[in-house]
Amino acid sequence: MSDTISAPLPLRSVRVTDPFWSREMDLIRTAVIPYQWDALNDRIPGAAPSWWAHNMRAAARAIAVKKVGGGYAPVQQNCGFVISPEEGKPPMEDGFYGFVFQDSDGYKWLEAVAYQLMVKPDAALQKQAQEAVDLIRAAQEEDGYLNTYYSLTGRDRAFTNLKDHHELYCFGHLTEAAVAWKQATGKDDLLDVARRFGRCIFKRFGPDGERGCPGHEIAEMALYRLYEETGETEWKELAQRFLDVRGTDPSTFALEENRRLKKEGKKELPVTAERYRYYQAHKPVRDMDEAVGHAVRQMYLASGMADEARLTGNEAMRAACERLWRSTVHEKMYVTGGVGGTHVGEAFSRPYDLPSDTAYSETCAAIGLAFFARRMLQLRPKAEYADVMERALYNTVLSGMALDGKSFFYVNPLEVDPAACETDERLSHVKPVRQKWFGCACCPPNIARIVSSLGQYIATQSEDALYIHLYIGSEIKATLNGREITLKLDADLRKGSARLTVLSGEGSGTLAFRVPAWADNTRVSVSGAQATACADGYWLVSGHWQAGDSVEMAFDISVQAVAASPLVRETMHQVCYTWGPWVYCAEEADNGKNLHLLRACPEKKAEAQFRDMEIDGLTVPALTVPGKRVTVPDSAPLYAPWHQPETEETKITLIPYFAWNNRGKGEMRVWLEAE
Amino acid sequence: MSDTISAPLPLRSVRVTDPFWSREMDLIRTAVIPYQWDALNDRIPGAAPSWWAHNMRAAARAIAVKKVGGGYAPVQQNCGFVISPEEGKPPMEDGFYGFVFQDSDGYKWLEAVAYQLMVKPDAALQKQAQEAVDLIRAAQEEDGYLNTYYSLTGRDRAFTNLKDHHELYCFGHLTEAAVAWKQATGKDDLLDVARRFGRCIFKRFGPDGERGCPGHEIAEMALYRLYEETGETEWKELAQRFLDVRGTDPSTFALEENRRLKKEGKKELPVTAERYRYYQAHKPVRDMDEAVGHAVRQMYLASGMADEARLTGNEAMRAACERLWRSTVHEKMYVTGGVGGTHVGEAFSRPYDLPSDTAYSETCAAIGLAFFARRMLQLRPKAEYADVMERALYNTVLSGMALDGKSFFYVNPLEVDPAACETDERLSHVKPVRQKWFGCACCPPNIARIVSSLGQYIATQSEDALYIHLYIGSEIKATLNGREITLKLDADLRKGSARLTVLSGEGSGTLAFRVPAWADNTRVSVSGAQATACADGYWLVSGHWQAGDSVEMAFDISVQAVAASPLVRETMHQVCYTWGPWVYCAEEADNGKNLHLLRACPEKKAEAQFRDMEIDGLTVPALTVPGKRVTVPDSAPLYAPWHQPETEETKITLIPYFAWNNRGKGEMRVWLEAE
Repeated sequence: MSDTISAPLPLRSVRVTDPFWSREMDLIRTAVIPYQWDALNDRIPGAAPSWWAHNMRAAARAIAVKKVGGGYAPVQQNCGFVISPEEGKPPMEDGFYGFVFQDSDGYKWLEAVAYQLMVKPDAALQKQAQEAVDLIRAAQEEDGYLNTYYSLTGRDRAFTNLKDHHELYCFGHLTEAAVAWKQATGKDDLLDVARRFGRCIFKRFGPDGERGCPGHEIAEMALYRLYEETGETEWKELAQRFLDVRGTDPSTFALEENRRLKKEGKKELPVTAERYRYYQAHKPVRDMDEAVGHAVRQMYLASGMADEARLTGNEAMRAACERLWRSTVHEKMYVTGGVGGTHVGEAFSRPYDLPSDTAYSETCAAIGLAFFARRMLQLRPKAEYADVMERALYNTVLSGMALDGKSFFYVNPLEVDPAACETDERLSHVKPVRQKWFGCACCPPNIARIVSSLGQYIATQSEDALYIHLYIGSEIKATLNGREITLKLDADLRKGSARLTVLSGEGSGTLAFRVPAWADNTRVSVSGAQATACADGYWLVSGHWQAGDSVEMAFDISVQAVAASPLVRETMHQVCYTWGPWVYCAEEADNGKNLHLLRACPEKKAEAQFRDMEIDGLTVPALTVPGKRVTVPDSAPLYAPWHQPETEETKITLIPYFAWNNRGKGEMRVWLEAE
Repeated sequence: MSDTISAPLPLRSVRVTDPFWSREMDLIRTAVIPYQWDALNDRIPGAAPSWWAHNMRAAARAIAVKKVGGGYAPVQQNCGFVISPEEGKPPMEDGFYGFVFQDSDGYKWLEAVAYQLMVKPDAALQKQAQEAVDLIRAAQEEDGYLNTYYSLTGRDRAFTNLKDHHELYCFGHLTEAAVAWKQATGKDDLLDVARRFGRCIFKRFGPDGERGCPGHEIAEMALYRLYEETGETEWKELAQRFLDVRGTDPSTFALEENRRLKKEGKKELPVTAERYRYYQAHKPVRDMDEAVGHAVRQMYLASGMADEARLTGNEAMRAACERLWRSTVHEKMYVTGGVGGTHVGEAFSRPYDLPSDTAYSETCAAIGLAFFARRMLQLRPKAEYADVMERALYNTVLSGMALDGKSFFYVNPLEVDPAACETDERLSHVKPVRQKWFGCACCPPNIARIVSSLGQYIATQSEDALYIHLYIGSEIKATLNGREITLKLDADLRKGSARLTVLSGEGSGTLAFRVPAWADNTRVSVSGAQATACADGYWLVSGHWQAGDSVEMAFDISVQAVAASPLVRETMHQVCYTWGPWVYCAEEADNGKNLHLLRACPEKKAEAQFRDMEIDGLTVPALTVPGKRVTVPDSAPLYAPWHQPETEETKITLIPYFAWNNRGKGEMRVWLEAE
């Protein structure tokens, strides 16, 4: 199996030239990163405070006091899941505030900065990031432990609530940031912080330690990354240990709950794992077959599992990943690449339960799906993985952020009526406009880190092959059988062409082109190549390549009308439109109110017409499609003898989903009633 | 206007002979009333305790102690909205348990018993009811106050939280029961209890007292009823006072909240009424134009308002009633006659928001709608009022109770998937099977009292006219221009005929027949009458009537396919079937799982065929209609190019909605996808 394994290229080896994505990446650097730095420092007027820098500074002071033997005692605070200053009082200088996992916000920001620095050096930005790194270093305890919540509210309680208190989650994000920072700057400072914390965790929960695993996964994939970066096997062992302990009896989550209950003199719980489905800790990971519980956690766990399958060749783990993939993608994914059908627990719902208006579809969960998809691609290049990764990246990941990079969606519904969201508690999780920042601000910095590292999603390489997964214009430095070769990827979706041209260097091997699900009649023309063959949805072109050589893929691309499986109740009789990787939606700004009265005519999809539309300074390819509008007679009775409703011809204007809600508040629908 | 006003006949004057409804009424007498007596006495194994008799006895003891000067001090209990015995401990003999409004359960039961006694004397039942009456009398305080919650937890707090604590609601139900008991037995005992409590309330909140009004309405209509029974004008004045105070500034609900906040040293609230929309106390009642907030309360308030409009001739009040009617019936009513589109607050949602699966549609709210409709009919006989009253009675009111009278629905959804209800918190209010009893048991005794008093819904009479509203076989003793006349109403919907025959007596006047919305081509044939004319949906036949005379209405009746207004998003592309007053639904028992895959063919409604189906001993007129079933290909992808789905021909079996869920747990749908 190992011959199917590939790896992303180093971020420095992929220079994105595509105008759309370059703009997104620039936006992250010029708008999002500075904005988020202000947010981490609580300097955004009117936005919920992050408390990140506050907590780090407070912890650093506390630790400094401890180091000089000052007899530091934590400030007395209520130890809830989220802590706010007492009403009417200013925050205490030495108090912890925000969610228990607040440390992770800054780590994610640092990771995004590191990616940006790899793409484009920036001394001022690096200096700012170094400040953050130094602050983090100062907040680390002598034994390597690093978590401002526990340092400030009672270190003695550390590691007693892995299920809910996210210490290992914060460790995971720290590690991701540390590896990125090392790769960007060559500096070991943050990496050493992560390793020291890692060794502290290894000592406690490693193969010879206490059984334990993260309540919110990410440490698994972060540890594999740390292992790949450093070659130190302890990180692989710790990741494996977390995966092995997870979902086995007696449940470590139950055991830690019971220790607390016992202390309080309360009745203890049964210690069977099955109760922890929400945490994906209900059965051994290798037995899992359904994506369940909190969607982000499930995607992060699956990503770590795919890393293990790749790095250990464990077949049972690979099979479990494939089952989780099928469950996610074939039963529980929105057409926009979003996952998480219910706001109750921000979770996966039952199969085929994909409501449009009450959707959760958290931005972070789509990011998690892209992580999972990329890791499945690394295991084996199969076009379906890339199709899904692309769907998530181009639609739900981007819709999480306004076109100006200054406001964000946590929840990405497929149907919005602002009047309903604003008055109906059943929709209280659905915001009709993007928010500046969130108290629980997982999504904004997560967008920053994935968009900044886009280069790692475009292509992967194995010893003798370069796989092109996304058709995003770029310059790629690859290695084919040990020889470095620089290629240029051009793609013009409107024209239906993509081309790889060798700019410099030479080498022998395979250039592989994904056949996207949205392309028809793909054909490959090659100058000087041996043969072409298609496997798992990739055209494989083998040859010896040198400067001036090029391979061109041509394809037919057209506007698609898409139907969901009839098992999805919500979208019966409905249709949505896609073009290439983009999913389209109708907005009130173009189509007026009561979008549910629109009826699309999918049989006339060939009549769809593009027109450039400028939205907040960005030109997007809008579509007009033929349709009808149900007319509502004056004083229509609520119930009347059945008849086909009266309609009038209309043109329906659609815009790419990612660009919705950049023209003020209004209705939006992805799925339209079909004629 | 007064010439349009009519009144229900005394219950003793209407003997229901219709086999279907006789069975329902018998079921209430033989099954429901005994069952509920056991429930009130906490003798149903496995059901939530009612605590009614317990609380009454505890209060009676407390009052007896006070009367002999025993220095009674209330038991210390938490004073929440619902009180349960401390975990692991038996209930305290002198403690109050259950919801604050628990007293009302027994009053409703007594009211139902009284109606049954009017229909059919029953010495044993009357003796049992007398026990309840005596218990209530014993629980009344010396000054007339009667509420076990406050008597047992602190009388000094009485009347300090009219908004939430339902004292005036309990008074309303007491009064309804007392009038019914008086009418049934001629006894004044319970009526005197109600009057004494009423005078206690009048003293406090009457025209010269403190401003105040009920948080949960019913006292208004109960007081008008007490006024009509006794002729004592103070009850009319008190009802008017409640209506006049409601929704005016400064809000009495805000004032009472502020008194509590002040005592606790907390910041007081603004005293504007607009915040109390949930309680229909957001604006003066005569200005109301939309049905809002808690649905049962809104219906009870509207009923009281209609009583005032009728009894005072107040035009502004009548106009407000008509606006509330329009809002309820033309924008917010389910096709089943249910109201309350959202479980959040058991409330009316925004116009046209009528979700099928998350519907609340509380049984009590449909009962309230029938109350309101009957009162609108009394104001003016207009077929629409009767159509809606009938829709509610025949469908949602009855669906609230199992065919054996032993289990009940609080919530009446129009679409149920048990697997979803059982796993999805968003549907936690929707029970896939009827429950034995509820902690908050408003619905079961409410069904008992409305079904037992069905005779009051069939017809109303004015000085010179008898209006037939419901085609339910019965014998009616009416008075036409002062002369008593006994008539027999026969109806055979299948044959399309209804007939009024004079059995005895004679008199001059108008016999009026409602033209139901579900009947076509109605025509009236008369023996020896002067003329016929149709007004407001009633055929009016005037003449001198004597034994042997008869008027016959013939009509066409057929299975109807019904569509909702296109403004209702939830039912786009959907159709439901009705026949006469019955709304039909598809059940899994007849049609298999995945009812959303069925497609009805409304254009072929003429092919609908009746067949008798026996469900739990009752023969119901089932229907089969031509339809299709969408076939789900093996391994269908979640998203695919749009195409009309593959279907196969099928017959869809439908049963009347009221009879659903009497054959075990399964899917159900009222609205079917339309071909």
